[in-house]
Amino acid sequence: MTIKRAMQPVGWKQVRLDGGFWGKRQETNRKATLPLQYKLLKKGGTVGAHQWDWWDKSRGRPPWRIWVGDLGKWIEAASYSLALHPDSGLAAKVDEVVRSIRKGQKEDGYLYPNPIPRDYKFANLQEYHELYELGHDMEGAVALYQATRKRDFLDTMCRAANLLCRTFGRRPGQKRGYDGHPEVELALVKLYRATENRKYLDLAKYFVDERGRTPGYFAQEAARLKKRKMTFFDWYNIKGGYWYCQAHKPLREQEEAAGHAVRALYLYSGMADVAAETGDMGLLEACRRLWRSVTHRRMYVTGGVGSAPFGEAFSFDYDLPNETAYAETCANIALVLFAHRMLQIDGNSEYADVMERALYNGVLSGVGLDGTSFFYANHLTVFPQASKGAADNTAASRQKWFGCACCPPNVARLLASIGQYICSTSEDAVHVHLYATSRAKCTVGGKDVEIRQETNYPWSETVRIVVTPESTCRFTLSLRMPGWCRKALFKVNGNSVKPAMHRGYAKITRTWKKGDEVLVAFSMPVERVEANPAVRMNCGKIALQRGPVVYCLEEADNGKYLADMVLPKSSRLAAEWKPGLLGGCVVIRGKARRRVIAGWDDKLYGSSRSATRTADLVAVPYSLWANRAPGEMLVWIREC
Amino acid sequence: MTIKRAMQPVGWKQVRLDGGFWGKRQETNRKATLPLQYKLLKKGGTVGAHQWDWWDKSRGRPPWRIWVGDLGKWIEAASYSLALHPDSGLAAKVDEVVRSIRKGQKEDGYLYPNPIPRDYKFANLQEYHELYELGHDMEGAVALYQATRKRDFLDTMCRAANLLCRTFGRRPGQKRGYDGHPEVELALVKLYRATENRKYLDLAKYFVDERGRTPGYFAQEAARLKKRKMTFFDWYNIKGGYWYCQAHKPLREQEEAAGHAVRALYLYSGMADVAAETGDMGLLEACRRLWRSVTHRRMYVTGGVGSAPFGEAFSFDYDLPNETAYAETCANIALVLFAHRMLQIDGNSEYADVMERALYNGVLSGVGLDGTSFFYANHLTVFPQASKGAADNTAASRQKWFGCACCPPNVARLLASIGQYICSTSEDAVHVHLYATSRAKCTVGGKDVEIRQETNYPWSETVRIVVTPESTCRFTLSLRMPGWCRKALFKVNGNSVKPAMHRGYAKITRTWKKGDEVLVAFSMPVERVEANPAVRMNCGKIALQRGPVVYCLEEADNGKYLADMVLPKSSRLAAEWKPGLLGGCVVIRGKARRRVIAGWDDKLYGSSRSATRTADLVAVPYSLWANRAPGEMLVWIREC
Repeated sequence: MTIKRAMQPVGWKQVRLDGGFWGKRQETNRKATLPLQYKLLKKGGTVGAHQWDWWDKSRGRPPWRIWVGDLGKWIEAASYSLALHPDSGLAAKVDEVVRSIRKGQKEDGYLYPNPIPRDYKFANLQEYHELYELGHDMEGAVALYQATRKRDFLDTMCRAANLLCRTFGRRPGQKRGYDGHPEVELALVKLYRATENRKYLDLAKYFVDERGRTPGYFAQEAARLKKRKMTFFDWYNIKGGYWYCQAHKPLREQEEAAGHAVRALYLYSGMADVAAETGDMGLLEACRRLWRSVTHRRMYVTGGVGSAPFGEAFSFDYDLPNETAYAETCANIALVLFAHRMLQIDGNSEYADVMERALYNGVLSGVGLDGTSFFYANHLTVFPQASKGAADNTAASRQKWFGCACCPPNVARLLASIGQYICSTSEDAVHVHLYATSRAKCTVGGKDVEIRQETNYPWSETVRIVVTPESTCRFTLSLRMPGWCRKALFKVNGNSVKPAMHRGYAKITRTWKKGDEVLVAFSMPVERVEANPAVRMNCGKIALQRGPVVYCLEEADNGKYLADMVLPKSSRLAAEWKPGLLGGCVVIRGKARRRVIAGWDDKLYGSSRSATRTADLVAVPYSLWANRAPGEMLVWIREC
Repeated sequence: MTIKRAMQPVGWKQVRLDGGFWGKRQETNRKATLPLQYKLLKKGGTVGAHQWDWWDKSRGRPPWRIWVGDLGKWIEAASYSLALHPDSGLAAKVDEVVRSIRKGQKEDGYLYPNPIPRDYKFANLQEYHELYELGHDMEGAVALYQATRKRDFLDTMCRAANLLCRTFGRRPGQKRGYDGHPEVELALVKLYRATENRKYLDLAKYFVDERGRTPGYFAQEAARLKKRKMTFFDWYNIKGGYWYCQAHKPLREQEEAAGHAVRALYLYSGMADVAAETGDMGLLEACRRLWRSVTHRRMYVTGGVGSAPFGEAFSFDYDLPNETAYAETCANIALVLFAHRMLQIDGNSEYADVMERALYNGVLSGVGLDGTSFFYANHLTVFPQASKGAADNTAASRQKWFGCACCPPNVARLLASIGQYICSTSEDAVHVHLYATSRAKCTVGGKDVEIRQETNYPWSETVRIVVTPESTCRFTLSLRMPGWCRKALFKVNGNSVKPAMHRGYAKITRTWKKGDEVLVAFSMPVERVEANPAVRMNCGKIALQRGPVVYCLEEADNGKYLADMVLPKSSRLAAEWKPGLLGGCVVIRGKARRRVIAGWDDKLYGSSRSATRTADLVAVPYSLWANRAPGEMLVWIREC
């Protein structure tokens, strides 16, 4: 049995983005990000790390084990890019990296570069997360296979997956474990879909079912390894270590987003995949519950998740500190993955809304306009002096690379595959989730249809969609009505239409012929967004949003002491297109007030009411901050 | 040469407080705090710890070394109490504790209970702070001697101090070191004043002069001990370890309050003592500069200092986070010690203002009304869920004791000696710094004078002062005009007077005869205090203050989600005496607004302006918070 999925995604190979908001970012990704990351992965020793014989100490200090998944992500990113934009130089680099991984595979299929004792193979799943690394390699192998039809790497990863199938499970002699860092679950489902080998799905299902069963597997591991503590890393021990790894109770019983946010959202994505493939309604219910926990109570307005720096983790409902916000780029990307899966299953625009919110804000903030600098944590307020001496992963400016460089190649693969998020099909409909200049090839009602979008979205309100079926045919064009939008106008071939709404999508059902044109205009006034009163950090504050774009104040435009700026409720806010600013963007302008600092001198407290003055307020898109001189930044603005 | 000190403190034995605000707290301290702490010090093994032979491992795990100074503080507290309120039971306990310390003294005077290798004696000053522990014992010994005239303990501590004099200094064979935890500097000056042995002052001066000289002493220590890192504790290493210990540069060159706040303020107090005794104007200038750094740019409105939990340390100018405020009770007490010393030297009411601010707020918040529960960190905002699982020293409710129990006996000695902060004398004047029901015996112009105060201060505005000289004599009664007060009325024997003001003191110079009565009324409207716009956490917020008392909102009076309460600028605020509340206090009432939570349901963000409702606001004195059911608390209230 399978759950009747509402939609099927349109594969990334079917959607080209040339130009437009995402097309330009994808181009930078292709030209700057991928080559640089290859260089850094080589330089740091990650390329070649799989050939390290970890019980041969004579070769000196080997690379750190948690680097390895980065290779898989880079291969995945490069593969997406190669399929749409052939590039022999890049292809050669991919081959080199793949070769270096394949060479490291042991006879039995084992694949993992790490200086651990020989008998530690799959023995310390809580900390070594071998399966996480393998999962990323599997994703890379599937993408490479789909891009190039070369099977080598896919075969390698199937051999590794076969070893996992032999090693893990409930049969005698098998380990009843699961990885400390979920990821392999969704990767195994990808491998299953690519190879149609059911046992990979079964293993994914086993991992999902087994997780969090008592007696705790990690405690048994620790006892076997005679570890003094449950784990080597203190932060694992938050709430006993299990909570951190989403293994504190069976997944079906989990009510709240728990632990390390990247782990959580990779896991939820894998759960959704398993539910979709196996028809497990109980598991799907758990996914929906966890979705609500994440997005209704624990998500920043930027779509960032995992607010606590300690453990890079979820904390508690409505706990969304701004200055110490972690909101790891990888977690925000993983939220897109989860949203995308839930969207295909439930077909509800709520998922696409969150996907869009994360993509335009908390994901894109993770990479600079140069494509070569990255945020690991995405703070919502930055006061540079407070970040002085911070670790690279909580820095106040983007970094080229990190000690644990999970985020940069994750951004690269997301940008390279952005096309897959744009539309989906169902039996008799094409669903458009994201508005972006693009050309998608879909199949609906047995016929090929091209959906071409032209738009300056998110800066402009209008989207032109040209529908080109191979021959005249009847189907529904299902256009997402964005959650932030209160008023939209639709025209088909120049005539206004009033589409029916269903699950947040505007449905235009007709017999389409080549060149039919749909024009949509989404009204995009500047909105002042409030947070739930239980978000104690944002009481009395608003965030500025226009369309899907969340704004922030930067010192570059507004001077120092941003926290003292206050926006009167009555201030008119105007959107203005600035072609020369930050690659071209819409800024928001208004009149604010701030105190006159001069009168304070050296005084710390005063009881007389201090003087204020009018100040110009200029807000820029949050995702574009930190592309100018370093300085203060702030998303939530005081209102009076 | 000595600096001409503006004032001499009136000794603690000369001031009795029976009843009144401080008298009552002192009584609880005597009856509940001191006996309980004796019990806990016994139970935890601190009493008896000095007899531990630290190279005899057969006795098992000995007590932790940093407990030891707590004994000295407890003896000091008990001694202050005994002098004013004889108590044979308490006296016997003091004798027992003193005996247990004295028994541990080695032949050469060495005194320190710690399981360190034999050759570690004074070898790891950065971490073991033997001198800190000795300093507290010296303070205890001086207080006990002054209270009882028994010399035993004083002799013990002189022997220990003599060993220090032989060990440390610039002569050949001496160690050119200083302690990682300053304290002994001020203690040596106390020992000098009690014994008139000049070498103790010289040693204090040496420690002050040597501190922070290059090449760094701690690095030499580390090299000698072959320590892998400079120190065992990570937090020592903030800014290289030296900054944490105020040893990053010579004290005379330090511009900003640095490092661990308790260490810093004990050190500055010792510096002020050395400056006062030696007439070192350069050193005094450094004290004034550091005073301004602490109190003009790095002090909470409660008089709390050391805002950073990491390292219990000063951070940077205007960095005063509320929810994570550390503001350790010991640091706030140490600020009182520093203020009191600077006040005697400079005779300026600014010092007394800070002393009063800390005493009525950030110091007193450290102890519950029961006298048996304590805060280590004094947060300015508490959201209980955010503190769940926090260490005892950052807990959201007061604790009986701590792993490192420095604060509770520090509160005990402060409360037991509160009399010493009330007044001072100079050649021809008696200066009153604190208004409190009390009876002080002073000497002015060669004559004994009793200054009796009767007042319900800080709750009421009026203070009645009865002056009783042994015989009619002319002198100045110098009454501190509190910094928070804008209007005061003075009457002498019923007739209004307009005293001249000098350095913040109102001077009433006349020929006083027995029973002369001065009536003062300090106007105490409810004030809304603003913080400097550079304090980013408090923009748009005010703190309520009436007289010296800073207020806060508690969940017990105002319900949950305090951060969402907003006080209109136009709201009238009324002070109301509540005899039955929290031992009797003045509360502040007003009308505030808050959002209607009901409409939000499960929604995290909304763009429509949400409804608000009127809400009663009740503020209670900050120092009295957390004496009812646990819940939210907040000092800085949003204003609109």
